Amino acid sequence: MTKAETLRALHQGPEILVLPNAWDCASARIFEELGFPAIATTSAGVSFSLGYADGQNIPGKEMLAAVSRIARCVDVPVTADLEGGYGDIGETASALVESGAVGLNLEDILGHGAESLASIDEQVSRIAAVRKTGVVVNARTDLYLMQIGDPSTLFDRACDRLKAYRDAGADCLFIPGITAEDLIGRFVQALQFPINILAVAGVPPIARLKELGVARVSVGSGMMRSAMGHTRRIAEALKETGRYDKMIEGSIPFVEANKLFKL
Amino acid sequence: MTKAETLRALHQGPEILVLPNAWDCASARIFEELGFPAIATTSAGVSFSLGYADGQNIPGKEMLAAVSRIARCVDVPVTADLEGGYGDIGETASALVESGAVGLNLEDILGHGAESLASIDEQVSRIAAVRKTGVVVNARTDLYLMQIGDPSTLFDRACDRLKAYRDAGADCLFIPGITAEDLIGRFVQALQFPINILAVAGVPPIARLKELGVARVSVGSGMMRSAMGHTRRIAEALKETGRYDKMIEGSIPFVEANKLFKL
Repeated sequence: MTKAETLRALHQGPEILVLPNAWDCASARIFEELGFPAIATTSAGVSFSLGYADGQNIPGKEMLAAVSRIARCVDVPVTADLEGGYGDIGETASALVESGAVGLNLEDILGHGAESLASIDEQVSRIAAVRKTGVVVNARTDLYLMQIGDPSTLFDRACDRLKAYRDAGADCLFIPGITAEDLIGRFVQALQFPINILAVAGVPPIARLKELGVARVSVGSGMMRSAMGHTRRIAEALKETGRYDKMIEGSIPFVEANKLFKL
Repeated sequence: MTKAETLRALHQGPEILVLPNAWDCASARIFEELGFPAIATTSAGVSFSLGYADGQNIPGKEMLAAVSRIARCVDVPVTADLEGGYGDIGETASALVESGAVGLNLEDILGHGAESLASIDEQVSRIAAVRKTGVVVNARTDLYLMQIGDPSTLFDRACDRLKAYRDAGADCLFIPGITAEDLIGRFVQALQFPINILAVAGVPPIARLKELGVARVSVGSGMMRSAMGHTRRIAEALKETGRYDKMIEGSIPFVEANKLFKL
């Protein structure tokens, strides 16, 4: 099986696919060593790591270079968060194949804010362009995350989009911004297709998501922001106390950290 | 004052200079927001982040690109850990000036292992070449860290080197691998010059180092390896428990993390 086939199959198996989102090679290698069968990237985490705010601010070339570094250093399949695709999505997907990653998330927000929402037809042709490259497509609608339009028709409009994305050849449908168990269950029933839930505060635990029929769970920038919180705490402790114990306690020893990477 | 002058003056002030070592833009911005007056980089941390083992494995160009990203995103002076200098040190120092960083660490190990130890004359001319560019030089000897040669003559040999480095125009002398209070004190007395101590387990706290006359303390890859340990714990918790609370607790909220960077 190719890595793309392996990743595709992980959406169809009896197990729910839990994807940690890496922002650099260190996080990716840590996730791989823990035995996760595939690794996602986080656009926000990669952006923060390289000095950009999230939301299509990072040049596509820099994002792809980061994805390439991550894909090069792990053996498991890597699926990339490429935001709205950074311009011509066919070209971006081809560059992604070159990078060694085998999947991508594709948002239907193309720029900044709700005004940049792609039409269904436009997004369907973008998904089809990615599918031609063999890349595993996690087709995302930002309607819930950005709360676009009349709330009373949100579910129906999201379903219309996601069904069209599914029929255009998406491998999984991603609905960030939903947390309530009953809403998640309604999407599973309506779509009859693998869906991806973003794990944030308020989302049911993995075991319950599996019972609801969810195929894939990812954490977005959650792990990166957690590591950033930790970094802030240990640096503040150094500054306030002049001691190193908070930094040293629980750190990965140098020799062990170094062994995560090829010499 | 230029940033180089600011950094140089921080070695001469009444306060001990405490430098956190960043490995990416997120860590650098976190340290800057906490009020550290300058930021160092860690070669090991940058290497891990970009997928390389530490120890002159990363191409110099990639290291300089990472330093440049960090220097671009903070206003405080940045001093870079450039290992042995990646070939022609004059060229590397000029590229560093272009990157916006204003200081560097220069090791006397040029390749892999003790065999690559530069002669004193060679290292003196390398330090002089960096000084011509105006970059603040933290001249490091690896004799203790790598335990090179007869232990009974280690102190004298290190002093010979460090005095030569000092007289060649170094701004600070770096002796990683020493932890004992009495040994640190002996170096301060012998050199009568700003010295840099690497804070690892067993090193006295900042307040004591200040009493001993130490000018500068840095943490090497300590913060990065601590963040890596945290990342492993939260990812392991996700895998073992299927819950997100360990990840979410203490993380920097998305909006706050995003505000660390220019839009």
